Amino acid sequence: MAVIESIPNVSEGRRADVIQRLADAIRGTKGVELLDVSSDASHNRSVFTLVGDAASLKAATMALFEQAVAAIDLRTHQGEHPRLGAVDVVPFVPIEGVTIEECVALARDVGPAVAARFGVPVFLYEEAAANPSRRNLEDIRRGEFEGLAAKMAAAEWRPDFGPSVPHPTAGATVIGARMPLIAYNINLATDRVDVAKKIASAVRHSSGGLRFVKAMGVLLDDRHIAQVSMNLTNFEKTPIPRVFEFVKREAARYGVTVLESEVVGLVPQAALVAAAEYFLQLEGFSAAQVLENTLRD
Amino acid sequence: MAVIESIPNVSEGRRADVIQRLADAIRGTKGVELLDVSSDASHNRSVFTLVGDAASLKAATMALFEQAVAAIDLRTHQGEHPRLGAVDVVPFVPIEGVTIEECVALARDVGPAVAARFGVPVFLYEEAAANPSRRNLEDIRRGEFEGLAAKMAAAEWRPDFGPSVPHPTAGATVIGARMPLIAYNINLATDRVDVAKKIASAVRHSSGGLRFVKAMGVLLDDRHIAQVSMNLTNFEKTPIPRVFEFVKREAARYGVTVLESEVVGLVPQAALVAAAEYFLQLEGFSAAQVLENTLRD
Repeated sequence: MAVIESIPNVSEGRRADVIQRLADAIRGTKGVELLDVSSDASHNRSVFTLVGDAASLKAATMALFEQAVAAIDLRTHQGEHPRLGAVDVVPFVPIEGVTIEECVALARDVGPAVAARFGVPVFLYEEAAANPSRRNLEDIRRGEFEGLAAKMAAAEWRPDFGPSVPHPTAGATVIGARMPLIAYNINLATDRVDVAKKIASAVRHSSGGLRFVKAMGVLLDDRHIAQVSMNLTNFEKTPIPRVFEFVKREAARYGVTVLESEVVGLVPQAALVAAAEYFLQLEGFSAAQVLENTLRD
Repeated sequence: MAVIESIPNVSEGRRADVIQRLADAIRGTKGVELLDVSSDASHNRSVFTLVGDAASLKAATMALFEQAVAAIDLRTHQGEHPRLGAVDVVPFVPIEGVTIEECVALARDVGPAVAARFGVPVFLYEEAAANPSRRNLEDIRRGEFEGLAAKMAAAEWRPDFGPSVPHPTAGATVIGARMPLIAYNINLATDRVDVAKKIASAVRHSSGGLRFVKAMGVLLDDRHIAQVSMNLTNFEKTPIPRVFEFVKREAARYGVTVLESEVVGLVPQAALVAAAEYFLQLEGFSAAQVLENTLRD
């Protein structure tokens, strides 16, 4: 059973009837399960979480675009969250029995289909990006819808698929593939936020640390403890247990111990199994040995 | 979703047509999935692995008894494996969304139903046992079918349900509830099997160690390494990481290090998550945070 997750972000977080129509378009697609809808009025944005196989997710994405392009007009859209288009971002994430490469292939299949049917220019991002300057969503989205026509006039911002000018009301769309994000925090047995900041600086990729770690040091006011707050963007290549041991070692350098760690929100089973394998020195273990996994085929 | 596993052991491992009929009886029960059938001719015994909720498993057990009692005659049955009855043992094991107490309740519901409908005496064992002398399957089964009538003549071996004499052809049945077993081995970076035996003696319950560990020390001839080979009979109360750390500490006392560990066969997700929690000092983690678990409701 192949399970891919898709988390389309749509630029509508206020009109309940429109949000309902968007959700219905997803729910009405065979083979797709809509797990969550989160709408934020001040962001004026809704995030849908759905799962299915590649073909079903493609159909659901097309159905979502059909409703969104008809109902949303970026010329009058206002909200706190930066956005480029009616359907702003569509990431595909490998969950089970599927590789990141298959999610890249899905993004590169959905992209031209969206461009052809709706006349919306499509940029590929993250793992699906055709060149490194488009890996980061923030770089593509800089300037937002209002600056999009001017931005796309430059050759370097020609879209990967579709017209080289924005859709008049629906803007442009960013489609891609990425690994599941893990929000992972390590709490220190100290209130010295300077130590947490130094550790964050040591562990994060941007300042010389591990490739798939974003980190910052913060103080948890209510508990008077310092925290290294992280996002792990590829748990296969930079696994949780290695991050934990790295932070523990750095903390020791300041005479500080680790109080506890925490996972915020969802985490793939494989990330936890990898932690068990690491510390237990498990050899030859396979996901097929997880009892629950035998119940789902 | 409540998932209970049942692993009935039936005293027939040679006649393919009978085994087929037994499997069909299980497969034909609504809400039950038959995951595996393993038959052994020299043991003259078959082991069925099925999952379902309590009501479905009760129905499947009754259907299995109906076929087994009709087809199997213990008076002429021969095989290497000790046995007391046509359906010899029926354990119920909590897998997901269900407690051991609910499995005990299921055993105490199925027991009298079997006794009433088939006239087979039923002994409750393990967690479902009404008194401590019946917790161990081996104690109940000692003397086997051939010694059963004499054994049951004593007041202490009156069955929990049903007649106080064996069924003439189907003997008696042992029904109960237990936690999933985990076969877990730790390989040492040494060929000193005496060290593995000393560690096994230290860690196992029977000689003073941890409550839910059975262990022995063996030599892996082909690899020239010593192994502490274990069965963990309740991973919630005696978790894998505690066993690993215990063995590592004992090995260090002999100047030996742990080479690796291994899980043989299936392991519940919760046992691996517990290992991740232990070593990562994870606080406030819930199984609902495992991404795959959100896909199965």
